[in-house]
Amino acid sequence: MDHLKQTFAVRFTYTVFFTEQLFDTKNLLFADFFRQQAADKLAKPILFVLDAGVTEAHPKLAASITTYLAKHTAFTPELLTVPGGEAAKNDPALVEKIVDAVDRFGIDRHAYVVAVGGGSVLDLVGYAAAISHRGIRHIRIPTTVLSQNDSGVGVKNGVNYRHKKNFLGTFAPPVAVFNDSQFLTTLDDRDWRSGISEAVKVALIKDATFFNWLETNAQALAHRDRAAMDYLIHQCAQLHLQHIAGGDPFEMGSSRPLDFGHWSAHKLEQLTNFSLRHGEAVAIGIALDTLYSQQLGWLDETDTNRILSTLRTLGFNLYHPMLDADDSAGLLKGLSEFREHLGGQLTIMLLEGIGRGVEVHDMDNERIRQSIATLKESNDLTYNVLETL
Amino acid sequence: MDHLKQTFAVRFTYTVFFTEQLFDTKNLLFADFFRQQAADKLAKPILFVLDAGVTEAHPKLAASITTYLAKHTAFTPELLTVPGGEAAKNDPALVEKIVDAVDRFGIDRHAYVVAVGGGSVLDLVGYAAAISHRGIRHIRIPTTVLSQNDSGVGVKNGVNYRHKKNFLGTFAPPVAVFNDSQFLTTLDDRDWRSGISEAVKVALIKDATFFNWLETNAQALAHRDRAAMDYLIHQCAQLHLQHIAGGDPFEMGSSRPLDFGHWSAHKLEQLTNFSLRHGEAVAIGIALDTLYSQQLGWLDETDTNRILSTLRTLGFNLYHPMLDADDSAGLLKGLSEFREHLGGQLTIMLLEGIGRGVEVHDMDNERIRQSIATLKESNDLTYNVLETL
Ligand SMILES: NC(=O)c1ccc[n+]([C@@H]2O[C@H](COP(=O)([O-])OP(=O)(O)OC[C@H]3O[C@@H](n4cnc5c(N)ncnc54)[C@H](O)[C@@H]3O)[C@@H](O)[C@H]2O)c1
Ligand SMILES: NC(=O)c1ccc[n+]([C@@H]2O[C@H](COP(=O)([O-])OP(=O)(O)OC[C@H]3O[C@@H](n4cnc5c(N)ncnc54)[C@H](O)[C@@H]3O)[C@@H](O)[C@H]2O)c1
Ligand SMILES: [Zn+2]
Ligand SMILES: [Zn+2]
Repeated sequence: MDHLKQTFAVRFTYTVFFTEQLFDTKNLLFADFFRQQAADKLAKPILFVLDAGVTEAHPKLAASITTYLAKHTAFTPELLTVPGGEAAKNDPALVEKIVDAVDRFGIDRHAYVVAVGGGSVLDLVGYAAAISHRGIRHIRIPTTVLSQNDSGVGVKNGVNYRHKKNFLGTFAPPVAVFNDSQFLTTLDDRDWRSGISEAVKVALIKDATFFNWLETNAQALAHRDRAAMDYLIHQCAQLHLQHIAGGDPFEMGSSRPLDFGHWSAHKLEQLTNFSLRHGEAVAIGIALDTLYSQQLGWLDETDTNRILSTLRTLGFNLYHPMLDADDSAGLLKGLSEFREHLGGQLTIMLLEGIGRGVEVHDMDNERIRQSIATLKESNDLTYNVLETL
Repeated sequence: MDHLKQTFAVRFTYTVFFTEQLFDTKNLLFADFFRQQAADKLAKPILFVLDAGVTEAHPKLAASITTYLAKHTAFTPELLTVPGGEAAKNDPALVEKIVDAVDRFGIDRHAYVVAVGGGSVLDLVGYAAAISHRGIRHIRIPTTVLSQNDSGVGVKNGVNYRHKKNFLGTFAPPVAVFNDSQFLTTLDDRDWRSGISEAVKVALIKDATFFNWLETNAQALAHRDRAAMDYLIHQCAQLHLQHIAGGDPFEMGSSRPLDFGHWSAHKLEQLTNFSLRHGEAVAIGIALDTLYSQQLGWLDETDTNRILSTLRTLGFNLYHPMLDADDSAGLLKGLSEFREHLGGQLTIMLLEGIGRGVEVHDMDNERIRQSIATLKESNDLTYNVLETL
């Protein structure tokens, strides 16, 4: 039969900057970025969408942005504030609100939308930017640990539809990311800690040296040492970027090998009605798949214990009662749903050593139950010790 | 300052098939395509979205699809019908309707959405597919000349927002396109003719031999010769695919050099409240920029006349009273809007010969007025001749 074959490649490039006090008028980083963009020749509007949780913790933010742009650029900022957290992704009216602002302020493919906030607000704004005019230029300023070291430097966006996570979304790289460590000082402890589990995840499957560093600095990180966090974010962002560039950036294949510890984490988030933060669930998921890898004889006892105790030193609780939910609704159900979602063949990342992830295509229910039991026991033990003290 | 640079390329590939009677059970093309996709191993739902104008003209279509899939594949078709024409792109409820179907029928990234219809329905369905689950696999079955030779084989989709054309949309290549020439038999004359101007456009800027063929076959095409149309669509689709692959597929730069004759066409469509079909406006736009190129001395009189008379033989009327709309609202206004949209620098395609497009960065208002006057005169002449007869 007659046919024509089409093939082409599209190249994407962007920079992730690390800085402090991005909108301090003495910090020229943001201004220089625009100076280097040809588009700066014209005075253009630029739309900022701010996370309400961030403006609350940083009440002078909006004023600083306005002052900074007036002093250093030809842009007029238009500011919009949206609720932070998962709420940002659950309300379709917020997508509409951003698209409406794009329309009203005349933001076209030569202008910019800048999102300042946690992963949720970045996901929302990235989505609205990606669908407006077939993609307007989009800058991310992540303000949480998770978004600075993982989600905010990547290529995905999305919102929920009827409470289904990321049901609507696209793959759309930003034109730049600015990580300002100053923002992290106002995070609450759970959000600070949560983002660290993505670093543990990526270290375990890719970089033993980074894991050693995490082990050594777990105490400092738990006590909110900023220098340690700066290093962690830089390393983790770099590994994440490498993973994207070296793999399948738009996930057109079917495996998702960076998601170590995530198959159970996703189900746990759901089972706990999202009372567990993503990172808290991931810490448990990592512990579970670490114990599973040990049962296979791939990890020795020393390494297994190093991983579990690093997670505990970071402050994570590695057991949750929902781990013992009934098989028909619990984790094992989650595993079969995930298999189905992948089109019948499972791909799960396990460890054959610290820093060495390996893919497997099935998991044994009995071994999963055994890993859960071990987590429960050591949790009971911890509580018993605490009670004895 | 500290930074990380991210660069990667994403490869896209798809096939455009040419056939007749795609859903005749004896035609194995469609079934073979699925057999070659790994995903066929599982019985999956597959969502068909049908253009109501097409199902009206082809009342047995839905039944044929169901019969065909039952006989040749493991897929269960879910059918949805939506209004055809621009109405498909003006109603936000239709995007919602398709997303809802994706959700209800459990269409995931391993399943397919198939759009059957004109360019409008393809744009709508392509958009809904692109935003669902960050992009589900999407197959196009274009049913008009325009969509078979141009829009349907390309990488863009979109819907209107507050009646602004393609305000929402993405770049998202299909996984396959099936051009079935049988569909074209039921088009009305204006739709049949309209799509031909994209072929004239691409021939004039890229392929003199193809223009010679169009000139020779203009009469046959005007009289709805199917073999001539099959050849036209194949050639034009091929040139369009080459243009995309060789250029800037996702239009991340700023020039849009394939759009010969389009700067004025877009404005004319708007000025006539879309009573002119896109292709009818493009025919006028081509005539205008041809005369402009002649005034610059780039085209000789013979070639200019060959172009104009080919368009007339095809049945296009090359004058519309709105060409003489007041400068402040008319074509010249459109030009300055377009300049602004491009960020200050205009890029317009003109001709320095048949088959040889060339980009310029400004146009002279006086010469544009002169080209309009010439079109008007020859139109009056045509009518005078008709009246004399
Ligand atoms: N796109 C991706 O690739 C990707 C990857 C992983 C996770 N995610 C998404 O990221 C989201 C989670 O993001 P998150 O962990 O950054 O949390 P978040 O965005 O949900 O924010 C949590 C809370 O912190 C507040 N906040 C944000 N920055 C603050 C600051 N500097 N000071 C004080 N408060 C602040 C917010 O207002 C919110 O109330 C989820 O929706 C998840 O699906 C996306
Ligand atoms: N995505 C792109 O790259 C791109 C490029 C150019 C144009 N477009 C868009 O394409 C649209 C125009 O598409 P079009 O010219 O194909 O027209 P159309 O889709 O608007 O259809 C015109 C009419 O023909 C009917 N119809 C369709 N197929 C038929 C058939 N086989 N028999 C009888 N009736 C049939 C439709 O129901 C409709 O009433 C515009 O919205 C334009 O913006 C998109
Ligand atoms: Zn994660
Ligand atoms: Zn066109």
